[in-house]
Amino acid sequence: MAQSTVAAAASGLVADMSRDELEQLVAKMIEERDPRDPNLVTLIAFSGDLDRIWPTTILATTAAAGGMDVAVFFTFWGLYSLVKEEKRITGDNWMTKGLSLMNRGSAEHAGLSKLNFGGAGPLMMRKLAKEHGVAMPEDLMAMAQDLDVKLWPCQMTMDLMGLKREDMIDGLDEPAGAATALARMQKSAISLFI
Amino acid sequence: MAQSTVAAAASGLVADMSRDELEQLVAKMIEERDPRDPNLVTLIAFSGDLDRIWPTTILATTAAAGGMDVAVFFTFWGLYSLVKEEKRITGDNWMTKGLSLMNRGSAEHAGLSKLNFGGAGPLMMRKLAKEHGVAMPEDLMAMAQDLDVKLWPCQMTMDLMGLKREDMIDGLDEPAGAATALARMQKSAISLFI
Amino acid sequence: MAQSTVAAAASGLVADMSRDELEQLVAKMIEERDPRDPNLVTLIAFSGDLDRIWPTTILATTAAAGGMDVAVFFTFWGLYSLVKEEKRITGDNWMTKGLSLMNRGSAEHAGLSKLNFGGAGPLMMRKLAKEHGVAMPEDLMAMAQDLDVKLWPCQMTMDLMGLKREDMIDGLDEPAGAATALARMQKSAISLFI
Repeated sequence: MAQSTVAAAASGLVADMSRDELEQLVAKMIEERDPRDPNLVTLIAFSGDLDRIWPTTILATTAAAGGMDVAVFFTFWGLYSLVKEEKRITGDNWMTKGLSLMNRGSAEHAGLSKLNFGGAGPLMMRKLAKEHGVAMPEDLMAMAQDLDVKLWPCQMTMDLMGLKREDMIDGLDEPAGAATALARMQKSAISLFI
Repeated sequence: MAQSTVAAAASGLVADMSRDELEQLVAKMIEERDPRDPNLVTLIAFSGDLDRIWPTTILATTAAAGGMDVAVFFTFWGLYSLVKEEKRITGDNWMTKGLSLMNRGSAEHAGLSKLNFGGAGPLMMRKLAKEHGVAMPEDLMAMAQDLDVKLWPCQMTMDLMGLKREDMIDGLDEPAGAATALARMQKSAISLFI
Repeated sequence: MAQSTVAAAASGLVADMSRDELEQLVAKMIEERDPRDPNLVTLIAFSGDLDRIWPTTILATTAAAGGMDVAVFFTFWGLYSLVKEEKRITGDNWMTKGLSLMNRGSAEHAGLSKLNFGGAGPLMMRKLAKEHGVAMPEDLMAMAQDLDVKLWPCQMTMDLMGLKREDMIDGLDEPAGAATALARMQKSAISLFI
């Protein structure tokens, strides 16, 4: 046997490789080839509309409840769904203050992307949801936090819209940028732009 | 040889592994690491607008024609594109009936997300498509069914909007929920939220 | 040793496989199982709105700057963001000419999906971006080209909207179709419909 090992080493054969070594080699090759983790989900919440916050929070909480590791990256209009419910005005100049007036903060006050009718549409949608036992987006957002879904506000668009950390709900993760979102999506089994 | 096999087993070497055993081991390790099937495509059809039903059905039919296994999960406004063409009103109360009036069913009557002009925009778009030999969304939907694309209505939003199975076109798959869509996307090579 | 090799070959054992052969076998099995390249990113730019061109170009340039291989497939309204800035009218009949008037070409003239206010919204957004050192979409588009991001116009929707290659900015890749986009997404680590 000793002789055969020497021969194998000399000739580069796998004959004397242990099963553990083989499995480590294969695992390393798979890892290098595909850094993806089948358990990761990354959602980009671009929209602040009720009808898109809903699928975002439903997918996030359902995946997290199923044991997946979920991160939601809030950017652009989506940021307003993270603003505290009691905040009426955010921003640091007339432009960003105006934006906040037209995008009232928190998922609770989100409008619909169509058939908004000055807020009547969302009220009706919320009433329908209540009648059918469908959770409200703001409740799903709280549930997401309970389920350890990472909520990442986008730093660049926070700056753009004059939103500060204290304007936003507690328990958010550190603001992040596009590079962080991309690195996470590269490893994610599911990445959606909603 | 028999002696060497015993030695290998005792020392945990791979020396006496057969080629088949090796391939099975590697296949199992890859499978565990990545449950994804490169052949699966999952599309979430959130929008009922003509300009989004078009890419959804074009991607679905092109992928299926190329031999891929495609499922389209219709949710929210997207559900209305599954409603039968002859249905004018769906829903079980004034709210869901109103919704159906404003979202006339079937891909054939879908509006545009912008430049709708009370239906003139979609008519023009359809005329342009006809002139250029581009298939209509409702034809692509029928073609998708012929190509065995799975069409899944979302149970939760069907309930919300008071849509029943009999309001919808024939040949749909069983209504499904977010957990089913997520499980499928986890295995899919391509998952898009449209 | 020679005897053992013969025995291994006869019995299908891996005993006499070289390390190189083993690695080639495993690499082939991984490749067959998953044709995906962790370095590929494919974005579908469906929208021509400023607020969506921004994330598209930010994600594309950030990924490319990080060494990833990025392709953006421009379709439908997204095509108008590739039109030359100086072009006021494109199209080959009254319908497509009308479309071009309502979708003024180039990222520089893109409107917002909401709060457009006849162009005041985008102007304000651009002013905010300037104040915060955020690059303009048209600059990001040029940067994307410098970083070798592939920019693919969709052939079918170009025909539909009467857009010709000479209407569009220089340096674009060959127009492509849904099948090309799907084949690329199948191999991509990140595929988003924006």
